[in-house]
Amino acid sequence: MPRYRLTVEYDGGPFHGFQFQDGVHSVQAALETAIQAFAGEAARVHVAGRTDTGVHATGQVIHFDLGRVWRPDTVRDAMNAHLREEAVKVLDAVEAAPDFHARFSATGRRYLYRILDRRAPPAIAQGRVFWVKTALDVEAMQQAARALLGTHDFTTFRDAHCQGKSPVKTLDEATVRRAGDEVHLEFAARSFLHRQVRSMTGSLAEVGAGRWGVDDLATALAARDRRACGPVAPAHGLYLTAVSY
Amino acid sequence: MPRYRLTVEYDGGPFHGFQFQDGVHSVQAALETAIQAFAGEAARVHVAGRTDTGVHATGQVIHFDLGRVWRPDTVRDAMNAHLREEAVKVLDAVEAAPDFHARFSATGRRYLYRILDRRAPPAIAQGRVFWVKTALDVEAMQQAARALLGTHDFTTFRDAHCQGKSPVKTLDEATVRRAGDEVHLEFAARSFLHRQVRSMTGSLAEVGAGRWGVDDLATALAARDRRACGPVAPAHGLYLTAVSY
Repeated sequence: MPRYRLTVEYDGGPFHGFQFQDGVHSVQAALETAIQAFAGEAARVHVAGRTDTGVHATGQVIHFDLGRVWRPDTVRDAMNAHLREEAVKVLDAVEAAPDFHARFSATGRRYLYRILDRRAPPAIAQGRVFWVKTALDVEAMQQAARALLGTHDFTTFRDAHCQGKSPVKTLDEATVRRAGDEVHLEFAARSFLHRQVRSMTGSLAEVGAGRWGVDDLATALAARDRRACGPVAPAHGLYLTAVSY
Repeated sequence: MPRYRLTVEYDGGPFHGFQFQDGVHSVQAALETAIQAFAGEAARVHVAGRTDTGVHATGQVIHFDLGRVWRPDTVRDAMNAHLREEAVKVLDAVEAAPDFHARFSATGRRYLYRILDRRAPPAIAQGRVFWVKTALDVEAMQQAARALLGTHDFTTFRDAHCQGKSPVKTLDEATVRRAGDEVHLEFAARSFLHRQVRSMTGSLAEVGAGRWGVDDLATALAARDRRACGPVAPAHGLYLTAVSY
């Protein structure tokens, strides 16, 4: 029973998140429908990182098993043909080892958060960036982000409904840089807590706007208290960009 | 009677081009409606470069006169408030000299054309890029583009309905570069013929795909014959990015 590993891209806007839910449209449902349509068999899709409603992906990874052997390029093209009307596309498909698991084999995840910091709202990047009216101090954000690097109890930056066993995670990368009229934040870790990236980003945006000092971020982290977190940044600025194995 | 000069950004998708036309929605109509709404007076908007249906702008320039004096920042913010539901926004507003004219004072225009050259269609950049299925040879495109630089009779790359007096234009810049999974073409000139950028881009894409040789572009230009042009690239990959004065 061959196993396929796919890299997929999606616009989070039209979906109620990745995971299948009754009565609403999900990325998983769109993918499973496309598999059924081309292969004529039902397959269960497993995903590297379940994204919330509105969150985008440019490098999400999934796997599934099929009874029949297909050329991986055929899987990619046939699924894209059936996904024509959907805001999710297959970038790449390969045959995977039988013990490969999109979620459990992953050794790293990478996220990008896009903030548009200018006076005028976006006309073109609408739904793709978090718009803030005031210019952010990128250098202050860079300095503050350093406090997040390494192994910490990230309770402050964890959603109240997070089901992770431990709030302790290791953040390998936290960079903030100017990209034209946007500020781009990138985070890499083996894994993240629920809404951790949006929580860290929201607090870093407070630093950038000058409402928090650079040291306030380290203080918030040390508090290990959800109430110390800044406003959580909205879903539509967030992108899962890569999963490593 | 103060004159205002505004830089505007718009998504070409929802509009039937820049210019006012009866019975359809235009960028000009959206802007003039917003001016009327905030200032209480009718103003005629003049534009640097009239863009076709579907063409985007990140740095379009307009001007108009108002009977009353307003702070330029107020013009920008008040117009954006009235443009909340529209895919056009005011990036910047300044008071201009009485003899400034968005179109006739312009000394240069700059366009960007975005091609996504990969097997999978776009899930996120849908309507923002021209998607071609095969990887383009950027180096061949760069070489071919050199033939376009300088002063030429651009009849080959001019729309049959172009109303320009002369087909002779001077192209100051024509660059082609890889940008991730996209190819970006940039063109700068004092002014362009109707559909010149889309015509040149479509022909350069033929070179990139290997259907045309590098020298075929120079041959097409030298033909001074519209029938020598490659397929015209679609509107939704094109952006007017800057106007200089």
